Amino acid sequence: MVKSSLENIRHSLAHLLGAAVLELYPGSKLAIGPAINDGFYYDIDVSGVISDNDLPKIEKKMREILKTWRTFEGREVSPREAKELFKDNPYKKELIDELVEKGEKITLYASGSFTDLCRGGHVENAREIDPKAFKLSRVAGAYWRGSEKNPQLTRIYGYAFETKDELQKHLVMLEEAKKRDHRKLGRDLELFTFDDLVGKGLPLWLPNGTLIKDLIEKLAVEMEKKYGYVRVSTPHLAKEELFITSGHLPYYKDSMYPPMKMDDGNYYLKAMNCPHHHVIYKSRPHSYRVLPIRMAEYGTVYRNELSGTLAGLLRVRMLSMNDAHIYCTRDQAEEEFKKVLELTMEYFEIFGLKDYWFRLSKWNPENKEKYINEPENWNYAESILRKILKDLKVKFVEADDEAAFYGPKVDVQFKSVIGREETMSTIQLDFAAKKRFGLSYIDAEGKENNGVFVIHRAPLSTHERFMAFLIEHYAGAFPIWLSPIQVAILPISDKQNEWATEVYESLKSKDIRVEISKGNETLGRKIRESELKKIPYILVIGEKEEKAEAVAVRARGKGDQGQMKIGEFVKKIKKEIKDKK
Amino acid sequence: MVKSSLENIRHSLAHLLGAAVLELYPGSKLAIGPAINDGFYYDIDVSGVISDNDLPKIEKKMREILKTWRTFEGREVSPREAKELFKDNPYKKELIDELVEKGEKITLYASGSFTDLCRGGHVENAREIDPKAFKLSRVAGAYWRGSEKNPQLTRIYGYAFETKDELQKHLVMLEEAKKRDHRKLGRDLELFTFDDLVGKGLPLWLPNGTLIKDLIEKLAVEMEKKYGYVRVSTPHLAKEELFITSGHLPYYKDSMYPPMKMDDGNYYLKAMNCPHHHVIYKSRPHSYRVLPIRMAEYGTVYRNELSGTLAGLLRVRMLSMNDAHIYCTRDQAEEEFKKVLELTMEYFEIFGLKDYWFRLSKWNPENKEKYINEPENWNYAESILRKILKDLKVKFVEADDEAAFYGPKVDVQFKSVIGREETMSTIQLDFAAKKRFGLSYIDAEGKENNGVFVIHRAPLSTHERFMAFLIEHYAGAFPIWLSPIQVAILPISDKQNEWATEVYESLKSKDIRVEISKGNETLGRKIRESELKKIPYILVIGEKEEKAEAVAVRARGKGDQGQMKIGEFVKKIKKEIKDKK
Repeated sequence: MVKSSLENIRHSLAHLLGAAVLELYPGSKLAIGPAINDGFYYDIDVSGVISDNDLPKIEKKMREILKTWRTFEGREVSPREAKELFKDNPYKKELIDELVEKGEKITLYASGSFTDLCRGGHVENAREIDPKAFKLSRVAGAYWRGSEKNPQLTRIYGYAFETKDELQKHLVMLEEAKKRDHRKLGRDLELFTFDDLVGKGLPLWLPNGTLIKDLIEKLAVEMEKKYGYVRVSTPHLAKEELFITSGHLPYYKDSMYPPMKMDDGNYYLKAMNCPHHHVIYKSRPHSYRVLPIRMAEYGTVYRNELSGTLAGLLRVRMLSMNDAHIYCTRDQAEEEFKKVLELTMEYFEIFGLKDYWFRLSKWNPENKEKYINEPENWNYAESILRKILKDLKVKFVEADDEAAFYGPKVDVQFKSVIGREETMSTIQLDFAAKKRFGLSYIDAEGKENNGVFVIHRAPLSTHERFMAFLIEHYAGAFPIWLSPIQVAILPISDKQNEWATEVYESLKSKDIRVEISKGNETLGRKIRESELKKIPYILVIGEKEEKAEAVAVRARGKGDQGQMKIGEFVKKIKKEIKDKK
Repeated sequence: MVKSSLENIRHSLAHLLGAAVLELYPGSKLAIGPAINDGFYYDIDVSGVISDNDLPKIEKKMREILKTWRTFEGREVSPREAKELFKDNPYKKELIDELVEKGEKITLYASGSFTDLCRGGHVENAREIDPKAFKLSRVAGAYWRGSEKNPQLTRIYGYAFETKDELQKHLVMLEEAKKRDHRKLGRDLELFTFDDLVGKGLPLWLPNGTLIKDLIEKLAVEMEKKYGYVRVSTPHLAKEELFITSGHLPYYKDSMYPPMKMDDGNYYLKAMNCPHHHVIYKSRPHSYRVLPIRMAEYGTVYRNELSGTLAGLLRVRMLSMNDAHIYCTRDQAEEEFKKVLELTMEYFEIFGLKDYWFRLSKWNPENKEKYINEPENWNYAESILRKILKDLKVKFVEADDEAAFYGPKVDVQFKSVIGREETMSTIQLDFAAKKRFGLSYIDAEGKENNGVFVIHRAPLSTHERFMAFLIEHYAGAFPIWLSPIQVAILPISDKQNEWATEVYESLKSKDIRVEISKGNETLGRKIRESELKKIPYILVIGEKEEKAEAVAVRARGKGDQGQMKIGEFVKKIKKEIKDKK
């Protein structure tokens, strides 16, 4: 028996799910049921209501039916026959019409007494499905074909693997992810909040989260100063005309907020910072002597996402980012791009991020529509990007037909602590902006040169995504330099309050973020509370410490560090903060 | 002869202007011509075109006509007679209809052969007008009755005073204001720019302006840390529902940007930060122990101003401000309000601003519609505000019926360097927010207490207005700590480049903002250029300085300061920067 691919197992399980729901909820109408990256789902117009509580029952029914299934028998049918079979199901009928329109054949697959409209891609024999290697996970709402104009269906998700062990491993990973879930930790650590009055996808940063945001922005300002950037500050909106010039309208219109009609025209919230930066570049002439100009801004952009798709910090409607655009000559592009990669790696080093690699995303000369037609610049740009990656001796892969419209890019790929791969940031070389915005410089001969290359870079992704990533990465235990509270002082009893307060004031005067817990709770409880807040250092102060004018130090994750004089502790923690530990 | 008031002189001059235009541009239609704070204007539907170049001619005609005038003879007429007289003038006819509707009488005033529809308020005798004490100043466009839906008229402005000397003094003041004009200096010093593609009223901050903005924000962060504030960061928009809760909709709707219709409702750009801060306050319960909470944000708000009214930084459509809201108990309100005044005065001290006083703006118990009906809180709040102002021994005035809807306020009134009075900032006590947003705290008895007082404060006004004010105040010569470039190094010839570069690197490493001018221009020209940029220190490096490993120091506005060793100069300037000189 040939082992079918995991995808076939998952797709077969979608059929099984559909069959079980039809039996338990007669009159339900199946829409579509594909395999996905950790299992499968089926979108169903349920006759009745299905909630998470019903999943065990459905799962049980799936296992019962599975015993009766052998193979998936496919046969091609006429549109008429297919439509007759699904005469009560408007979704399948719509799919049939579409197949007809595209001139594709219509196939049905039957297993046991269940028949579905399907392209195929199943296991050869139902025995290949391990009944203990799948599990229904949750119920969600989903619009038919993803459009909010269509009816809402019930989507039932399931996990599926080849073996029970693999499923188990996946569930453990998910459990770990749940513990590290940025939404839960964001709430527990009082980093951010959402509010229905304010609206979906619009986080409100609480003091702790704002503190971290400010520290990351401060780091960005310092780093960019070191790398020779200047900073600008631009409005969050602009007239329609700007986004027509930039090409965002009409090509990107669906992702943008709707326009606001003012007395002098339509205004849009910006979806990217580049058009504003280009306008600043263009606001005065530039000699070749002042290039490159590295223009940075902690800018904010807006994306009109469907409210149903918004999730924590990972999909929001307003994003701030450590953005910058570098304007340089063709000859300077290599060195500038290389410096950006170095800057990016320096950032990751600071945050202790190691599990990443680069992807050189190139054009496809055959794909005339997707890419700007400057073959010489493409070849030049791709060759210097490859050279840089080789020079830097970093791990990288190349990907064809993945470039931006205006030039090749280097994406930074990450493996998160729970094993998820994602693109953290992207650095792009752009030779289309010069023409769209008429960017130029005065060359050594005093002539206007239109060959301005632009590098787009946001090494720290968006603040929202980066925060979600960091929360998960550190499981909420931020390094000392980023911790909202760095030290908790816990006097054992009221008698130590005086010395504890002295310690508190002394640390505060040294710019250390410190809190003191003078309440009547037991020491054990105070310690637990500080640990829940993931405070890096706990200073316990009892009679002994008071006498010695010292503190008993407990380090997060390391436990008791013994007694220290206050000066000694300050020196230690100040060094750790400075070194961004 | 009784001397008429200056306003009467100015209004009489408006008549004279109208008469002159009718003679020079027959068929023109006069609309309205009032006195204003430094003269007068007349809005006219001109038959032909009038530009600034035509003003001397019109002025000459005014003086000719003035000689023929004696008195302003008023008489009441019937609507019919008035409309007959102005049968070709739709503006006057509209005014006549309005008078009729309001039941007011219609009066005409004649002087010489000129008759105008007018309420009166002229000089008794035309001899009271000094023909050398007025001057037409400029031509502008103005919509009839201020609405962009109406036809655009030509507005001719004039200055007018009682004596030639007073006019002369005013013109000198205007000349000074022009030199200090923030739009001109903003351009010359490369602080900000506007661009038609981006839109009116939306400044783009260039690197120099962003640097100053960042320094002021840094100052605010430091000051607020010292005064015990926490920082938050909130989205620039929110759902309609928030602004209905806050009362901005519908009462403030005209000043807000139009809504953006998203899939889950209407979203508005925020006109104020308070609703977002209230939501944060409300996002978790607060014990009386943690009050007061002082919540700060360099927030951005949006105002939908008519495009025709936008001017430089003084009237913009997007404003950022060093905003904060303090949540406290009734008993804490006095101390908290006092601390805000102290903070405000500390800011002004830092910026060297001295010419200010306070205004206690109170309610009017008779005006039931304008004010929240909590007499006890009004009396309490006004009495503590008065007590604070007395305790602080500051200059203040009291103003009835000038409070906000929700409580009394203290406005900070300023006299600008060119003598203009304006309100810089306002600190408001608010006892209405608690009810609108259901703000509460848990008191010492464990009960929910709804008596949360809120203080609104933005001591530095908006960043845009404050920058305009500072540019004018300093005439662009920012103090050293705020200067985008603090030191210019000017080697006299190429031979000194090496030592000059060493000095440059040395200053740079000390975090001093420095530039070096290595070009072939003469020293005189280099000095002039640095002076135009209003750089506080110029270090000239010639043979003598090179030998002595020193620099020749020129201080802005003080000239030659003699030779200094580099270490000595660094010490001096670092101290000045630290002291915010």
